[in-house]
Amino acid sequence: MSVADINIARMSATVITYHLRMGRWEPNARGRLEQAALELFGERGFEQTTAAAIAERAGVTERTFFRHYADKREVLFAGALVMKDLLVGAVAEAPASASPLEATAGAIAAVGAMMQQRRELVRQRQVVVDANPELRERELAKMSTLGAALTGALRDRGVGELTARLTAEAGIAVFRVAFDSWVNDPDAAELPDVVRASFVELKAVTSGE
Amino acid sequence: MSVADINIARMSATVITYHLRMGRWEPNARGRLEQAALELFGERGFEQTTAAAIAERAGVTERTFFRHYADKREVLFAGALVMKDLLVGAVAEAPASASPLEATAGAIAAVGAMMQQRRELVRQRQVVVDANPELRERELAKMSTLGAALTGALRDRGVGELTARLTAEAGIAVFRVAFDSWVNDPDAAELPDVVRASFVELKAVTSGE
Repeated sequence: MSVADINIARMSATVITYHLRMGRWEPNARGRLEQAALELFGERGFEQTTAAAIAERAGVTERTFFRHYADKREVLFAGALVMKDLLVGAVAEAPASASPLEATAGAIAAVGAMMQQRRELVRQRQVVVDANPELRERELAKMSTLGAALTGALRDRGVGELTARLTAEAGIAVFRVAFDSWVNDPDAAELPDVVRASFVELKAVTSGE
Repeated sequence: MSVADINIARMSATVITYHLRMGRWEPNARGRLEQAALELFGERGFEQTTAAAIAERAGVTERTFFRHYADKREVLFAGALVMKDLLVGAVAEAPASASPLEATAGAIAAVGAMMQQRRELVRQRQVVVDANPELRERELAKMSTLGAALTGALRDRGVGELTARLTAEAGIAVFRVAFDSWVNDPDAAELPDVVRASFVELKAVTSGE
């Protein structure tokens, strides 16, 4: 099994389950709130947008906003929990024959598949994050948390501490590079493919003397 | 030439030059301020320590403090500029025969050598940073900046964009893992050796199928 062969079709079910679970109170309220928030952040800037304005644009009450999100920043970062569950779940479920790098590459390609399905929202979100230093720092903290979660998932497969950390951190590095080259390029290949190509490139980079 | 053979002796001269340059106004004032700041941050906490208290402990005026540092946080992060110069300089000066990964590994080992010389101060600093969420976020931002500088230095060697970014980000990942395993372990090997061993491990991780 090679990095390029990772099968990620299974992940779609996880994403669908998640959307159903979060939407049980009000069909689509969460999705509408996210869309409204990203529109307003883009139009007015993150600082100038209130939770009340987001609720109004989404056609729900402010109380509904706060049932879904603790504050307006959480609209941008709630997805981190989904990414973490996806990563950890995919590493846990990788075949026993998968190497630590293969398990990691498969997990990151699964996250890429989720993002590819939400391409326009992801792109809108990134414009907002890039424009705000505090959000950029929070994004780095999110990546650090995902690296730690990935390390833990590899450790749970019996991978030694140093190897687990190195594989996880290198995996996150690959993800960041692949994501950056994808997010602002309308002609980019699909993100899971960009991720896989970046893992292949990492192997080339580290094997060359 | 392999990653394990990188010669870093040349770097000592850079470090010495730096210390001379920064200390030209008042011999050792900067070093005493740094030592005093780290002691006070450790004793009282970062929040509870003022620039005035740092100056007093160092036996200099508050004005001298502000001639060296914009604020107390800068005492902890001024070293980032030195690290950046070291990284960029070492990549630029790596032999033409060095691969992108070798040039990166040599540069990161050079940073490791500088830190090894300042082991106790680096350890004290890390305790302060780890204890404070805002400082931890700033530390992540520093690492991101160093990754970008390393990418630029590789690009200047004619390395393609994707390869440069992947190599730089993977290099920073290796550094973080090596640093973490070294900083809190009194029995750790010297940091440049830990860095080199971690690059060897990265190669093993990425070459295994």
